[in-house]
Amino acid sequence: MVRRFYASTDAFNGEFAQFLEQERGTGADVAKIVADIIADVRKRGGEAVAEYTAKFDGLQLDPSTLKSDNVDLHALAAECPQDLRDAIDFAHDRIAAYHSAQRPNDHKFTDDAGVELGWRWTALESVGVYVPGGRASYPSSVLMNVVPAKIAGVDRIVMVAPAPKGELSPAVAYAALKAGVEEFYPMGGAQAVAALAYGTSNLAPVDKIVGPGNAFVAEAKRQVFGRVGIDTIAGPSEILVIADHTANPDWVAADLLSQAEHDPSSQSILIVVDEAVGDSVEKAVENQLNSLATGERARESWTNNGAIVVAPDLDAAASIANRIAAEHLELCIEDPDALLPLVRHAGAVFLGHHTPEALGDYVTGSNHVLPTSRAARFSSGLGLYDFLKRMSVQRAGPQGFAAIAPAALRLAEAERLPAHARSISIRTNRDADG
Amino acid sequence: MVRRFYASTDAFNGEFAQFLEQERGTGADVAKIVADIIADVRKRGGEAVAEYTAKFDGLQLDPSTLKSDNVDLHALAAECPQDLRDAIDFAHDRIAAYHSAQRPNDHKFTDDAGVELGWRWTALESVGVYVPGGRASYPSSVLMNVVPAKIAGVDRIVMVAPAPKGELSPAVAYAALKAGVEEFYPMGGAQAVAALAYGTSNLAPVDKIVGPGNAFVAEAKRQVFGRVGIDTIAGPSEILVIADHTANPDWVAADLLSQAEHDPSSQSILIVVDEAVGDSVEKAVENQLNSLATGERARESWTNNGAIVVAPDLDAAASIANRIAAEHLELCIEDPDALLPLVRHAGAVFLGHHTPEALGDYVTGSNHVLPTSRAARFSSGLGLYDFLKRMSVQRAGPQGFAAIAPAALRLAEAERLPAHARSISIRTNRDADG
Repeated sequence: MVRRFYASTDAFNGEFAQFLEQERGTGADVAKIVADIIADVRKRGGEAVAEYTAKFDGLQLDPSTLKSDNVDLHALAAECPQDLRDAIDFAHDRIAAYHSAQRPNDHKFTDDAGVELGWRWTALESVGVYVPGGRASYPSSVLMNVVPAKIAGVDRIVMVAPAPKGELSPAVAYAALKAGVEEFYPMGGAQAVAALAYGTSNLAPVDKIVGPGNAFVAEAKRQVFGRVGIDTIAGPSEILVIADHTANPDWVAADLLSQAEHDPSSQSILIVVDEAVGDSVEKAVENQLNSLATGERARESWTNNGAIVVAPDLDAAASIANRIAAEHLELCIEDPDALLPLVRHAGAVFLGHHTPEALGDYVTGSNHVLPTSRAARFSSGLGLYDFLKRMSVQRAGPQGFAAIAPAALRLAEAERLPAHARSISIRTNRDADG
Repeated sequence: MVRRFYASTDAFNGEFAQFLEQERGTGADVAKIVADIIADVRKRGGEAVAEYTAKFDGLQLDPSTLKSDNVDLHALAAECPQDLRDAIDFAHDRIAAYHSAQRPNDHKFTDDAGVELGWRWTALESVGVYVPGGRASYPSSVLMNVVPAKIAGVDRIVMVAPAPKGELSPAVAYAALKAGVEEFYPMGGAQAVAALAYGTSNLAPVDKIVGPGNAFVAEAKRQVFGRVGIDTIAGPSEILVIADHTANPDWVAADLLSQAEHDPSSQSILIVVDEAVGDSVEKAVENQLNSLATGERARESWTNNGAIVVAPDLDAAASIANRIAAEHLELCIEDPDALLPLVRHAGAVFLGHHTPEALGDYVTGSNHVLPTSRAARFSSGLGLYDFLKRMSVQRAGPQGFAAIAPAALRLAEAERLPAHARSISIRTNRDADG
């Protein structure tokens, strides 16, 4: 039996808050280990990276190039079967189309005071994309991270991925080349993040590092933040489904399990108004778990972190959804459009019965790199914006200057910044060539 | 004599890179101290905050309310003189106008496959604004952080500012109330950041923390990142001026000093094509330093961190400016519009001779919270976007689903995620109520 909450009860608020606070994922103190690795890479460069890679991944890199003859993207990509290439191409084109629509416009206007104002968007020059190895080595993640960078106009996209004992997924290699990766190093962990942030003799440092990774990678990104930009720190996957009597319980169960199967620390939550719907879905989950190859970790996730919440009505369901601020939110209800305006916090929203979250993982075109662990309260999924930045532009001619300078002067004086004040007053006190 | 570089020389690239790498600001290892303070606040809540505030600020807070009877925003604001209020009001309205123009639109489209796609922007619910005390306690910073949050639609804006021995600037208090701050706690340092991120019995945690602070505050923000959102980590101020023969050397000197006066670790750099312009500006800087109340720290900044770079032409100057990626870039040249398109990395650009950077600090309306320490390579100044997030929305009806499901299924199989695959296939294998 999965845990069940009743939103109309007095105890709900407190109990549910405690449930949401529950830490998932590793609690190990990795900060010190990561700090040491970063310091070592800063000091010894490629030598240190090669040593850690040999130790953690069992792969011998050339310390001066950070390459291995045994891991070649082109050779690997050649092993990717044609039907899988077709699916990757299909996903690639849809992701490219969606993100192309995100390009923001530059803006310029002259206000009443005669001051010219605006901003310009420009692309980052270089980005490092971290692609996890092992269980979570996904061609779809390569596309989701690389394609928006490419569309934004990033000049140099560097991909790193650990290749334990030289193993790397051919589909990952194909997706990387399809998306336009031209620089690749088979390395991972904190050492790869450090090499991307600080550079080595061979690898020029990048400006921003994106992509998910394990606890060591996440901590390394946190520690190099400021030196380089980073995307949101990724936690375990989550799905929240709001379902009513029009939902098919088997479909909802499949969707809940599609996130539960990622990792035992993943979280699947169902909100229903009609408790009978919850009963049916719970039964369907049990049935499906028995025939699922990933059933063991899905069951662990569902049992430890899953929940069914019975809400008094759909408005209350939306309000609970906002508290959860889930990475993925499915509205498997009769009229999702009526509920959508009440949804304030979620990474991505899936409307109606034919939009399972897995569709968004691959082919709707929207990005599957989304805020987890309630971060949708304050951050967005990956997008074109992550690879652009906005530069403000302003010009006061003599007239505009005269209109706004007095207030600036008064504030500079109040803030006891005499050189600020002088840079204003020196332009008002006399006529000069300007 | 300030250091001088010649961009046409062979040695320039290496020497200039070393100069840019030079660490400014404190190098102290504050991570451990900050981690301990955060852990203590998480454990003991308001009691811990009150203890640290008594210790570091000499101010006694009520541990249950985190307030002090001696620090009241309304009482303090009443002490702010009328002409200063007028200047604050003037700046407020211009900042509000500029940021109102930044509101991004929601987007919705249906693509060829019949899939409905788009995104919605929603505001954060709660934001904590950190306002530094002491030397850097500026009413302008209050406006720059609070006004965009308000315009974005943030419901709850919590301001914290250390009030050493109960001291707080009346102008800061007035600006806070003008901008709409309704919740204020006189506290600062890592303890304030921890209280904002994790909450206390009295203070509900916020979703994001913005605002500059000292090294302890910056480190605390880094450590709570993920739990809450944060803005870019602020470093020492910077100004870069590109000046030609049409520039007034006294004006340029005043502008260079307007950033140098902030802190000994601030950085002012001048790029000239004509070395004689550099000579004139350097002389003017020396002259002005002698009559500047903040001359001591401005001189320290100029001597230790300042530079004059002689570039072969303006194109080269723009390219050097991009390497520097300065917080503030002034184009004090005859035709700034011709050079602007070559500028890729800068926090804010100031065009022509009548737009001193200090104007942007206060009253042009654009934000003065800008990326420092070369972070303009990968991040933007504060803006409306920092208080909004983008939620992707997607709907595949039966037809759209049929068009894109096969590729999703193929990818789910390749990624060995059978529950993902099932959530697709279960919707294709039979007809159901959907």
